[in-house]
Amino acid sequence: MKFCSACGAPTEVRVPTGDTRLRAVCTRCAVIHYVNPKMVLGTIPIWEDQVLLCRRAIEPRLGMWTLPAGFMEVGESTADGAMRETMEEAGARVRLGNLFSVFDIPHVDQVHMFYLAELCDLDFAAGPESLEVRLFREHEIPWHTIAFRTITATLRFYFHDRRAGLMSVHTGDIREIVLPHEPQTGLDRSS
Amino acid sequence: MKFCSACGAPTEVRVPTGDTRLRAVCTRCAVIHYVNPKMVLGTIPIWEDQVLLCRRAIEPRLGMWTLPAGFMEVGESTADGAMRETMEEAGARVRLGNLFSVFDIPHVDQVHMFYLAELCDLDFAAGPESLEVRLFREHEIPWHTIAFRTITATLRFYFHDRRAGLMSVHTGDIREIVLPHEPQTGLDRSS
Repeated sequence: MKFCSACGAPTEVRVPTGDTRLRAVCTRCAVIHYVNPKMVLGTIPIWEDQVLLCRRAIEPRLGMWTLPAGFMEVGESTADGAMRETMEEAGARVRLGNLFSVFDIPHVDQVHMFYLAELCDLDFAAGPESLEVRLFREHEIPWHTIAFRTITATLRFYFHDRRAGLMSVHTGDIREIVLPHEPQTGLDRSS
Repeated sequence: MKFCSACGAPTEVRVPTGDTRLRAVCTRCAVIHYVNPKMVLGTIPIWEDQVLLCRRAIEPRLGMWTLPAGFMEVGESTADGAMRETMEEAGARVRLGNLFSVFDIPHVDQVHMFYLAELCDLDFAAGPESLEVRLFREHEIPWHTIAFRTITATLRFYFHDRRAGLMSVHTGDIREIVLPHEPQTGLDRSS
C-alpha cells in the first residue's frame, strides 16, 4: 500500500490518532488504509465412503492435492463461497452440510473454513485451476502430497469423526492443532 | 479503489484474463486489486448467570448495546482477535471457550464470529469505543437497543443453549437465521 487507492497520492506508515497500530495513511487526503486477513472457503465433498480431491494446476503447491477451496468474494456468504469454489475447481454440485473446520493461519493472514458436503452426482471434472479431480477412499489419500496443512487437518478430523460416528466443529491455530491419531494399519502394527 | 496502491496510477474496472468477475486493474502496472470480505471477532463474556455488554460510543449504532467485537487484524488468530477486542472495548480479561457463532452478513461483506468466554474477574471498564460496560442477567438484556442483528442472534442462541444444557455452533446467513423462541415470561403468558 505505497499509494492511496482513493486519490493516488503517496501514503506514509504511522499510528493514526486514537489507534494503536501502524497503518498506511494518505499524505494528501488522510484516508487510513486498513489491511485485514482473508477467508478461504471450501468443502469436503463426499460420495459414499469417498472424498473428492483436486490436484492443483496453479502455484503455490502445483501438482499437490487439495480439497476444493478458494478466497471468499464480496457479496456472498461463506456457504455460497464454499459451493462456488467446489463448482469452479472440481465442476461438482454439492448439497452443503454443516460447518466442519475453521483454522487460523495467522502467519499468512488467512482463515480457512470447510463445510461438509454431499456430491449430488458423479458429474465432476477438473476446472481451469485443477490438473485432475478424483474420489479417494481413506486408505488411498495421498497424505504426503497434500497441498496445505489445513487440508490435512480437515481430512484427518473428518475420517476420525466418521469412525466415531459424530461430526463436530474443529477450530484453532493451525500451528498448534493436535491431529487425531491415524488408525492403525497392518503395516503400523508390524513396525 | 480508484488508484493503484502499488504505483499510484488510475485503475480501470474490467474482468481480468482467466477471471469471471469485475476487478480494479491498474492501467499502468496491471496489478489486479482484489476486494475480500472482512471478519469481525468477539466474545460472549460470562460471569455466573450474567453476560457483559458494551454501550457503543461510536457510530454506527452509537448508544446501543453490543458484545465486545471488532475487525480482525493481520497477524492474529480469530481467538486472539476476539480476546483483544474484549480487552479494548470492555477492559475485560477472559478465558476463551469454544467457537459459538459464525454469521454471514453478505450485504455488508462481513463475517461475524463469537467465542464463548469466562470473565477472569470483575475488573472491567469501558474502553474508548464504549460509553459504559455492565453485566446483564437474561431478563435484563435490552433487546430493543441491541446494536446489530448478529449480536441479538448470538445472545438468543446463547441463552437457549444454556437452558438446554448443550452449547453448539450456530452458523448461517444472518438474513435467514431462525432465532430460538424467547422463553415465556409472566407478561407473555398474560397477553
